[in-house]
Amino acid sequence: MNVGVVGASGYSGETLVKLLLGHPLVTLGAVTSRQHVGKPLAQVIPALRGADRGLRFVDSNAAALAASDIELFFLALPHGAAATFAKPFIAAGKKVIDLSADFRIADLATYTRYYGDHQAPELLAQARYVLPELAPADWKRFPIVAAPGCYPTSILVPLAPLLRDGVVTREHIVANSFSGVSGAGRKVEGNYLFVERAESATAYGLLKHRHLAEIEEQLALHSGAPTVIQFNPHLAPMRRGIATTITVPAAPGANVENLYATWHNAYEGRPFIQLLPSGETPDTAFVTGTNRVDLSAVHDVRTGNIVITSALDNLLKGAGGQAVQIMNLWSGFPETTGLV
Amino acid sequence: MNVGVVGASGYSGETLVKLLLGHPLVTLGAVTSRQHVGKPLAQVIPALRGADRGLRFVDSNAAALAASDIELFFLALPHGAAATFAKPFIAAGKKVIDLSADFRIADLATYTRYYGDHQAPELLAQARYVLPELAPADWKRFPIVAAPGCYPTSILVPLAPLLRDGVVTREHIVANSFSGVSGAGRKVEGNYLFVERAESATAYGLLKHRHLAEIEEQLALHSGAPTVIQFNPHLAPMRRGIATTITVPAAPGANVENLYATWHNAYEGRPFIQLLPSGETPDTAFVTGTNRVDLSAVHDVRTGNIVITSALDNLLKGAGGQAVQIMNLWSGFPETTGLV
Amino acid sequence: MNVGVVGASGYSGETLVKLLLGHPLVTLGAVTSRQHVGKPLAQVIPALRGADRGLRFVDSNAAALAASDIELFFLALPHGAAATFAKPFIAAGKKVIDLSADFRIADLATYTRYYGDHQAPELLAQARYVLPELAPADWKRFPIVAAPGCYPTSILVPLAPLLRDGVVTREHIVANSFSGVSGAGRKVEGNYLFVERAESATAYGLLKHRHLAEIEEQLALHSGAPTVIQFNPHLAPMRRGIATTITVPAAPGANVENLYATWHNAYEGRPFIQLLPSGETPDTAFVTGTNRVDLSAVHDVRTGNIVITSALDNLLKGAGGQAVQIMNLWSGFPETTGLV
Amino acid sequence: MNVGVVGASGYSGETLVKLLLGHPLVTLGAVTSRQHVGKPLAQVIPALRGADRGLRFVDSNAAALAASDIELFFLALPHGAAATFAKPFIAAGKKVIDLSADFRIADLATYTRYYGDHQAPELLAQARYVLPELAPADWKRFPIVAAPGCYPTSILVPLAPLLRDGVVTREHIVANSFSGVSGAGRKVEGNYLFVERAESATAYGLLKHRHLAEIEEQLALHSGAPTVIQFNPHLAPMRRGIATTITVPAAPGANVENLYATWHNAYEGRPFIQLLPSGETPDTAFVTGTNRVDLSAVHDVRTGNIVITSALDNLLKGAGGQAVQIMNLWSGFPETTGLV
Repeated sequence: MNVGVVGASGYSGETLVKLLLGHPLVTLGAVTSRQHVGKPLAQVIPALRGADRGLRFVDSNAAALAASDIELFFLALPHGAAATFAKPFIAAGKKVIDLSADFRIADLATYTRYYGDHQAPELLAQARYVLPELAPADWKRFPIVAAPGCYPTSILVPLAPLLRDGVVTREHIVANSFSGVSGAGRKVEGNYLFVERAESATAYGLLKHRHLAEIEEQLALHSGAPTVIQFNPHLAPMRRGIATTITVPAAPGANVENLYATWHNAYEGRPFIQLLPSGETPDTAFVTGTNRVDLSAVHDVRTGNIVITSALDNLLKGAGGQAVQIMNLWSGFPETTGLV
Repeated sequence: MNVGVVGASGYSGETLVKLLLGHPLVTLGAVTSRQHVGKPLAQVIPALRGADRGLRFVDSNAAALAASDIELFFLALPHGAAATFAKPFIAAGKKVIDLSADFRIADLATYTRYYGDHQAPELLAQARYVLPELAPADWKRFPIVAAPGCYPTSILVPLAPLLRDGVVTREHIVANSFSGVSGAGRKVEGNYLFVERAESATAYGLLKHRHLAEIEEQLALHSGAPTVIQFNPHLAPMRRGIATTITVPAAPGANVENLYATWHNAYEGRPFIQLLPSGETPDTAFVTGTNRVDLSAVHDVRTGNIVITSALDNLLKGAGGQAVQIMNLWSGFPETTGLV
Repeated sequence: MNVGVVGASGYSGETLVKLLLGHPLVTLGAVTSRQHVGKPLAQVIPALRGADRGLRFVDSNAAALAASDIELFFLALPHGAAATFAKPFIAAGKKVIDLSADFRIADLATYTRYYGDHQAPELLAQARYVLPELAPADWKRFPIVAAPGCYPTSILVPLAPLLRDGVVTREHIVANSFSGVSGAGRKVEGNYLFVERAESATAYGLLKHRHLAEIEEQLALHSGAPTVIQFNPHLAPMRRGIATTITVPAAPGANVENLYATWHNAYEGRPFIQLLPSGETPDTAFVTGTNRVDLSAVHDVRTGNIVITSALDNLLKGAGGQAVQIMNLWSGFPETTGLV
Repeated sequence: MNVGVVGASGYSGETLVKLLLGHPLVTLGAVTSRQHVGKPLAQVIPALRGADRGLRFVDSNAAALAASDIELFFLALPHGAAATFAKPFIAAGKKVIDLSADFRIADLATYTRYYGDHQAPELLAQARYVLPELAPADWKRFPIVAAPGCYPTSILVPLAPLLRDGVVTREHIVANSFSGVSGAGRKVEGNYLFVERAESATAYGLLKHRHLAEIEEQLALHSGAPTVIQFNPHLAPMRRGIATTITVPAAPGANVENLYATWHNAYEGRPFIQLLPSGETPDTAFVTGTNRVDLSAVHDVRTGNIVITSALDNLLKGAGGQAVQIMNLWSGFPETTGLV
């Protein structure tokens, strides 16, 4: 299968390109970047020296790409731009896996509140939010798949089945996430300089982080009722990885055995979800470079809370790896093809 | 004034020695270490090359130290050992500032539950827990001062006055802390190797972290009722610093203005407490090397929660700096002498 | 082909196990560790959670392994132990790829001077030092292959062909290397704690670094005469990677064009050697995770020196990756199989 | 004494401001920054929260500053701008300590070759290059002092006396330096982002680093003859610190005892130069936060080379600390006042 990556100059796009170059069942037919047109991939992504198969960046020309024989496009673009590109691709019958926010939120009003005007609201009905281990089975019928973001994946994977099964309450959910700096993207701003971020831990984006929109919409779907969470993101002085710790009151009568039973039911046989024994906590260092989410939980009888911990690589299961996993499932490839 | 440091081979003891060597109003009369007896300070603490005033480590001989003309001892020892040393010092009329847990917990049963048998329970009545900005004014009458730990300081400074003034509820308090690796002490264990901790974020000590004992005892004192919190400590890939984020429901009618008014009342004129505007979050990088706690808070009207963020240097305001601040106040020196 | 890894509890062994588990043309028949017998691989190497194919560590029993149907053994053992294990394996007709120093040095006296008594000197004649891009073609006939160390690879790859072709002099060669901390192995010592190594750059092992033995023996082979170098290793605050900078006087009449011509001749078509344009310097960040060596050089007409820079991943091209590359070539597999 | 800092928005200026605020014998009369006029110092330098004594940035108005009662100005400006500011200050009889390159190079042609046109060549005769431990005694008579850069200090301190006393040759000098990222200044460029620099070691600026101009001019002064060195700077993934390793052939008959004797003669009683025993290597982690240079050397009898290692904090002994040390000496204050 011939696939393309539109907008490959960010960290997610770069990760996706590396994965697709190593994928045994697809051909990387086009990699676009306005900024880098004509340059060999390895000139912009030096990690690919000797391994870019002679590919060069092409212009981000939506019409030309739509007319090509590429069957599936990954969009690694800012929101807004993604929806704009999706239109001609969908019109031309292509499949789209979008890594931006444009198709992550089903409710247009919510999208607008967090991101402003939508560039292709008419396509929302053709899109599905696909966290592969959680999405309703019919998603493959839709031509646009929104790949979830990094923070949402670290929260939804552990929490969604517990809410669905009533193991935890829907009140007083608090999620604190600690993210590597690549989670902020390749922003050339003073705040992201090495000297500023090394030896620095800090919360940011309290109250208004954009990922809240998709987190709460998805939690509501799984819990069956509006669900509000306190989401406190932080930056940690590391390149990759997200560690998320969720505190939520246990439902009456629930305990850690119920909780693990729910997780086992939900994730039995899913290669990228690893359940750690209660008391052993996930560590970003152990998931970096993999497409896994590691999960664990304890029940604090003193407080009545469940404390859940998860870890993933924000550029893999939180971005490019998840997108490839979606492609694998969509195309009927083994789920782990080209992934670790 | 002649002072001594007992047990200076850990990070806290080392920090304390550096501060006392630079302090203009005290003389460092003895620095003890069983392991390093006879060695020049700078041989063990190379940062002090050329600045150790010719001092050498002496043996940790409690009787000899008690008989010396040293007036005040800092104990930078493991719990248990600290209480053992305190006995002869108190018998000899010395002042003691203890950085261990031995005198942090007034309730013996609580101490025993977290730390095992107490080595000098008869001294508990002569000890006070002194977070200088919060301790009741009469503490200077007691010969033993317990300096609070790093996590507790980051939680008590913001939370205690809010509980006392009823700005926040006593229910559903969740504190997530993110600590530099020096917070674990100088433990030569595989888990603390550079290769294991770099690029690693992970929760640890969920349910049973020892600092809970002093945190909850102190919160109860300030709130006037038993107060239970969910405390989730984490390790971050940095050397120093603690960033703490506390989520707690606002009391009915409370808002961010009430909150800042309470903080202003509590901390007006205190040089080491800095209130940041709501919306600006503390960053460990800005407090490292100082004795400050930086504080901020937002009110999330969606959730009804207050989200508080604090940052401090675990080796200064969380250990050695706090001890020197206590000494300054106890001795009638200006509070900031020898501190930044 | 069925292969085994003997001694897989260090960083090199762990890397090797990961590579072999993902290699499409071999089966990992045994992974040994005295310390971890019976444990699932993923319990000791958490990065392998869900990906260890149910394998468990077996005991390091040389006789039992020699009697098994494993055809090729990787030895990731300390020197001394490696030679001891090699004996029964060779007696049983197995192939051995040794990552220790035991078979890296052809001259027994040199070995003894650097490492002490050799445990199997009678096997030296059956061993070859194989840096795949440099080794004489007949190496596949010998049953023991010594895989070069990390520092030597970063020095030999750029320097050996230049000495052979007379592009640089054999005098005044100075190599400074900056290594990630994993280069020191998984040593649980105070010096390798996170707090000690973060924010730390320091030289070590001046005069007596053991890798000198193999570096100079190999340089002499390629230059045709005894060749002495000044080798200054350093630790850098990073997990992986070696950056080496070599200063050497240009031979009379030589220039950067001659130099690159020699490199092109030597490495044309070799997938793991990348020549960067003069003036563009290798960066460890771009080779980490790959089996590459990136090379570059400038000619300083002011000083008459050539300044060569190289970078590689000490755990891949400097250890496990190189070993797999050797296995691929030895077995007739495509050279890059299972490698990036 | 009333002093001012012109251009305080970079890392060196910021460090200088912190030192001067804590200095007991001077008053910080003005801190300028075009970009930050009117803002409290602590708003731009959050490490100074609560400790900026109410100071605000003033405009960089040379005439107004020259007319003030400030006696001594520190220039923490880019080259070119520094010379421009120096003119009215000198005309008004002020003292100037310049941290830029403008007065570091006595030879105008050399300056022009490295930096372009000089903005105040007529002032060169009134300037002296003052590395306090090396400068000829008459420097205090000159109104302009050029404070040496970070790399040069790490090279000149060990090497200058050895060349002067003939302990080492003037040929084949190779200096490799490994610098923390703050050495590059607060440049908001993609190359200095956290994600790019963490886990990265790389050489840069080979052949043409600007610090060569002052290094070689100074070495010639001390050795008494033109002296050319190979200077290979590198970036290390740390915030602060420079580790320099110098390889140079020992002079005939010289050995490590001669070398240390020369160093003792040169630096006896100098508080900021620490000689470590041969075989013990300096570590940036031990000098960070201090104004020290730590030095050590070994004699390699195999190669005939001396290998010298030095370490310093690029923002202190390599910038702001050195400038304060110069001010102390110039003003007759104890040399270590306000420094560690």
